[in-house]
Amino acid sequence: MAALMFGSDNAVGVSPEVMAAISAVDDGYEVAYGDDQWSLGLDAAYSDFFERESFVFPVTTGTGANALALAAITPPYGEIFCHQRSHIFTTECGAPEFFSGGARLVTGSGADGKLTLDGLNAYVETHRPNNRHHLIPSALSLTQATELGTVYTPEEIQRLAEAAHCAGMKVHMDGARLANALVKLNAPPASITWQAGVDVLSLGTTKNGTMNAEAVIVFDAALARDIALRHKRAGMLISKMRYVSAQLLQILENRLWERNARRANEAASQLAAILQGSGHALLRHPVETNQIFVELDDAVIQALDAAKIRFRRWGLDDPPCYRLVTSFRTAEREIKAVEQALVCLAVPPQ
Amino acid sequence: MAALMFGSDNAVGVSPEVMAAISAVDDGYEVAYGDDQWSLGLDAAYSDFFERESFVFPVTTGTGANALALAAITPPYGEIFCHQRSHIFTTECGAPEFFSGGARLVTGSGADGKLTLDGLNAYVETHRPNNRHHLIPSALSLTQATELGTVYTPEEIQRLAEAAHCAGMKVHMDGARLANALVKLNAPPASITWQAGVDVLSLGTTKNGTMNAEAVIVFDAALARDIALRHKRAGMLISKMRYVSAQLLQILENRLWERNARRANEAASQLAAILQGSGHALLRHPVETNQIFVELDDAVIQALDAAKIRFRRWGLDDPPCYRLVTSFRTAEREIKAVEQALVCLAVPPQ
Amino acid sequence: MAALMFGSDNAVGVSPEVMAAISAVDDGYEVAYGDDQWSLGLDAAYSDFFERESFVFPVTTGTGANALALAAITPPYGEIFCHQRSHIFTTECGAPEFFSGGARLVTGSGADGKLTLDGLNAYVETHRPNNRHHLIPSALSLTQATELGTVYTPEEIQRLAEAAHCAGMKVHMDGARLANALVKLNAPPASITWQAGVDVLSLGTTKNGTMNAEAVIVFDAALARDIALRHKRAGMLISKMRYVSAQLLQILENRLWERNARRANEAASQLAAILQGSGHALLRHPVETNQIFVELDDAVIQALDAAKIRFRRWGLDDPPCYRLVTSFRTAEREIKAVEQALVCLAVPPQ
Amino acid sequence: MAALMFGSDNAVGVSPEVMAAISAVDDGYEVAYGDDQWSLGLDAAYSDFFERESFVFPVTTGTGANALALAAITPPYGEIFCHQRSHIFTTECGAPEFFSGGARLVTGSGADGKLTLDGLNAYVETHRPNNRHHLIPSALSLTQATELGTVYTPEEIQRLAEAAHCAGMKVHMDGARLANALVKLNAPPASITWQAGVDVLSLGTTKNGTMNAEAVIVFDAALARDIALRHKRAGMLISKMRYVSAQLLQILENRLWERNARRANEAASQLAAILQGSGHALLRHPVETNQIFVELDDAVIQALDAAKIRFRRWGLDDPPCYRLVTSFRTAEREIKAVEQALVCLAVPPQ
Repeated sequence: MAALMFGSDNAVGVSPEVMAAISAVDDGYEVAYGDDQWSLGLDAAYSDFFERESFVFPVTTGTGANALALAAITPPYGEIFCHQRSHIFTTECGAPEFFSGGARLVTGSGADGKLTLDGLNAYVETHRPNNRHHLIPSALSLTQATELGTVYTPEEIQRLAEAAHCAGMKVHMDGARLANALVKLNAPPASITWQAGVDVLSLGTTKNGTMNAEAVIVFDAALARDIALRHKRAGMLISKMRYVSAQLLQILENRLWERNARRANEAASQLAAILQGSGHALLRHPVETNQIFVELDDAVIQALDAAKIRFRRWGLDDPPCYRLVTSFRTAEREIKAVEQALVCLAVPPQ
Repeated sequence: MAALMFGSDNAVGVSPEVMAAISAVDDGYEVAYGDDQWSLGLDAAYSDFFERESFVFPVTTGTGANALALAAITPPYGEIFCHQRSHIFTTECGAPEFFSGGARLVTGSGADGKLTLDGLNAYVETHRPNNRHHLIPSALSLTQATELGTVYTPEEIQRLAEAAHCAGMKVHMDGARLANALVKLNAPPASITWQAGVDVLSLGTTKNGTMNAEAVIVFDAALARDIALRHKRAGMLISKMRYVSAQLLQILENRLWERNARRANEAASQLAAILQGSGHALLRHPVETNQIFVELDDAVIQALDAAKIRFRRWGLDDPPCYRLVTSFRTAEREIKAVEQALVCLAVPPQ
Repeated sequence: MAALMFGSDNAVGVSPEVMAAISAVDDGYEVAYGDDQWSLGLDAAYSDFFERESFVFPVTTGTGANALALAAITPPYGEIFCHQRSHIFTTECGAPEFFSGGARLVTGSGADGKLTLDGLNAYVETHRPNNRHHLIPSALSLTQATELGTVYTPEEIQRLAEAAHCAGMKVHMDGARLANALVKLNAPPASITWQAGVDVLSLGTTKNGTMNAEAVIVFDAALARDIALRHKRAGMLISKMRYVSAQLLQILENRLWERNARRANEAASQLAAILQGSGHALLRHPVETNQIFVELDDAVIQALDAAKIRFRRWGLDDPPCYRLVTSFRTAEREIKAVEQALVCLAVPPQ
Repeated sequence: MAALMFGSDNAVGVSPEVMAAISAVDDGYEVAYGDDQWSLGLDAAYSDFFERESFVFPVTTGTGANALALAAITPPYGEIFCHQRSHIFTTECGAPEFFSGGARLVTGSGADGKLTLDGLNAYVETHRPNNRHHLIPSALSLTQATELGTVYTPEEIQRLAEAAHCAGMKVHMDGARLANALVKLNAPPASITWQAGVDVLSLGTTKNGTMNAEAVIVFDAALARDIALRHKRAGMLISKMRYVSAQLLQILENRLWERNARRANEAASQLAAILQGSGHALLRHPVETNQIFVELDDAVIQALDAAKIRFRRWGLDDPPCYRLVTSFRTAEREIKAVEQALVCLAVPPQ
């Protein structure tokens, strides 16, 4: 049963509505490089979504979006403060360093993948003003939802962003799973982005159901101009852009983003409950979106393996930690399959 | 008749076979980031195509492919010798400089967009060995087909590449329209790439009928390792890579690349003949592939405009030069429409 | 007589006053990295010199000064417009590209090493606003005195700087031989720098009599802050800075800079007159400062060679061009030696 | 008594022999940019010193030397493993990141400023081969003597270098205080550099008695060629190079380096003994060269302050740590002054 897969939300295909949108634009001639009707409509659509004038730069990878976004707010002599588990630090092969011209990532810790205000303040305080020998704090990067599946509340973001701004830093949000966070918080998009102090957003839609469609979004015209000039230079200005832009529009249609994220989050909840119900699993972090990080008894691992239910060991921790990820496409029968695989392990009613 | 468009071969949609291939992979789970079955098959498919072990790195833009390719063969203190009309110099917003860490593009001239052996030799001779103050010749970049629609013969490439290698340079080919060149030359892919001395190839398939699918291709394992490490860092390692890889495979199936390129080239031939037949057009360069560069009398411009036949002025030359580009999708009726629009201008038989 | 040398104004030693200043600070303890009393006095001394608040960043090479200066006013996606003979383009091994993160040098021409307003305007006009594919005009770099020994008048600089500012560019001056230009023009330092629109100056004093003492000087606090942060990162923040700063102060004392430059300029005048008087020399450019560019008959070359008078062929021109450079240390006897060597060639009085 | 200063070994002047050497070359004309007789003699002199063919690149700052050296052995996608207290990480404002094109510093710990083999191995093991998402281990940087005044033995270096080479890394040594380490170890220069596996050395002589004279030294011709091409581009190729080269030669004459370093080390020993003898000081690290890191009772601080004996608090530790640095110029009376200042605090004989 190859279809059983909790390995990654990059491993699923494309939302049918999105595939239809791609087909729908595949007709006739359209100006390339962003001057087609769909691309030209992005700013308006996302301005509506964010309830504020927004500037949208489509790209095809999340790493590209993050690197482009960070380069726009970090001088070469700047530091980017981020969580030690952040994707920009662990899994992007130095893209932020490359695009910024050699800025430095400085990592903080914090439970459940979330930076803390204390941690940020402590970091800032290690920098003396006018020291000629040190890089300067330039950017704060928050991931929403975090790499450990948790979410920052609007208030948490606001407090962190305020402290960052006070220290002369700009705020970046890696929103590879922004939709999942929005669903969890039941909050308007504005509330966890610009209203909370986010200056530049990497908006991911690939994990939410599109075919490699991501975007850098800013809420300020000067920043937008800088990014526009870095966009082509980065090799990220897509020629037949309509195929990407149409997806970025479609995901907003009838709140497709929300339906997809809701399904993913719900599936994760169900899955987490099943795992916990087995009595042989220990959740490492609260399951707030579509990722589960869990310690599993060998019996569980064997049972899932026997049922060909795939997922991945995560990191090098001892005892090992495993990650299960759900998506908009996670089927009821996939959840059921886990349940059945573990049924024999369940703690008997007392 | 908005569908009439000779503005760009980026302006057309996607080949039906390619769209079908995209749909065909949109099912079930697949490992992300290049470990899916389609992506894993790319090396073999292109090794077959090029008749030599090939390493394929899918990307989504031609500028990205060029920049990644050039960075792998040019140290920061290197110079890249290219035609003054080359896309890497005129239209990529400094991507080669960025990716290489500040290498310099040095431009040569040459009729019809083609560098000459004399020009290359003259360039090399301006460099004295062991001069501490000068960048060193590091890369030769050839565009095939050229930006002016012409092609290098295998022998021309071979001679240029040999001279470049003698000077310690590596050879890059910008193959955004490689298929069009292959059809024109009726030559095997090997003959204008590695056999002729090309070290790294940017293979474009977008203009040939795909949806933003390009690739960097190398024929050497050490170069491949370097590019593999730059790929993610560049923000170009696509997560749902199967959707791009499937296109790169499909374009090879039943020589789709050839059929598409042949149609584009033929349409350009027909169009050029019609323009010339009008007695009011002067071709600026031989029409060897799918691009026409032409001076047009006002009467022609007005006639085409009245018929809503779109194309673009090219550059700032005086008298103006116009570019018409055909594609795999150029329809007979589009060619006919031009013919009809110009029929009244035709030189009467004497 | 090995001491005869018109090869370069880098080939001479150090002004005695400067050597004395170096010895004078070589005593006791001083805070490193610019917090010593001499370094701390630089801003005031140069503010006085330029009649405006100035921020001084000592470095030890002219290339370093230029690269640091240009990086502060050119984004990675910017273009630097400079003369095709400019040192930053011909002889700095890509330092401006490196320090700026991959900006591009675009060269203009102009008689006698001077850019023209028409040339600058023509360059600017090739850029269309909001083009996503092109680097943008960001910096104008002028060399004063030029690489060909000529000088821009204050009015010329002003007109060029005004046009540059209108185009959104900042203005850099490579002042490796600023003192020579000031003497020639008999103009106050302000008049050819900030008053004329120069935003950032590379001030060279090495050719003027110091031991590798150069500086980046800006007249704006925001620019100063940016440079301060790039200074250490560039590997240019000198630890025992007092030894460099003392020289930068000494060159101002009793207008040493002026005396030294005046001697160099006068020697060049004398030398040029002698060469012309021989009837076998053709000046290629007006001799306005301390450099002579000249075509020489074989008889002259042989006569000078026989007298062990050394100088260099310059560039690859045919007929060959030769460069003779004088300095603050050029002795009367050295000039006389040339005169004597050529006396037999002199055109006899009619 | 302003002359009393244990603040930094950058705070002292220049060794008289070195000053004499500078004066000695200040005569007549010499070719610039390294083709003078002194510069041309550097390779031979240091080949003799290191007992192996050596290539010497003079620069004027230690940060410059480190950045240039690291850039030559670290690709942009590489990681540099270094101690968390290393100067390249803490105090160079991101120069290694800048010069390498965005490589990443990864820090290890280890007592007394020394990396351990276990630490290195653990670092290497976190990298899986062929992972597309991670930077790769590229360089190991060791500081000798360390930033905490300790030294690596030849065997320790050898073991670390061997492990690094096995992992595909090159080895850099920051030898800002190499002479102090050599004196402590009483070992030949070869034994702690190339013989122990060091690929590229930053040799500092400034703290050892010169006036801003440092060098990058390599033992391999291919590496030398790469550095030669980065040297000018870095703004580090000095025009009147003889003044720097003469110092680099002079420091070798009659083992001046050794005498100077010995004096500095001895002074530190004496000083440490006095501090410890006071009964109010706790050494934080073994005093092996010319730096003392010590916790001091308030009484000591007040006594030293009253005697105008200056030194610096080091870092942000609590309880505070203080650094006292000696140099070749530390006078007996300076040591005595400390002794006298603390005499009243000394623990009375029981």
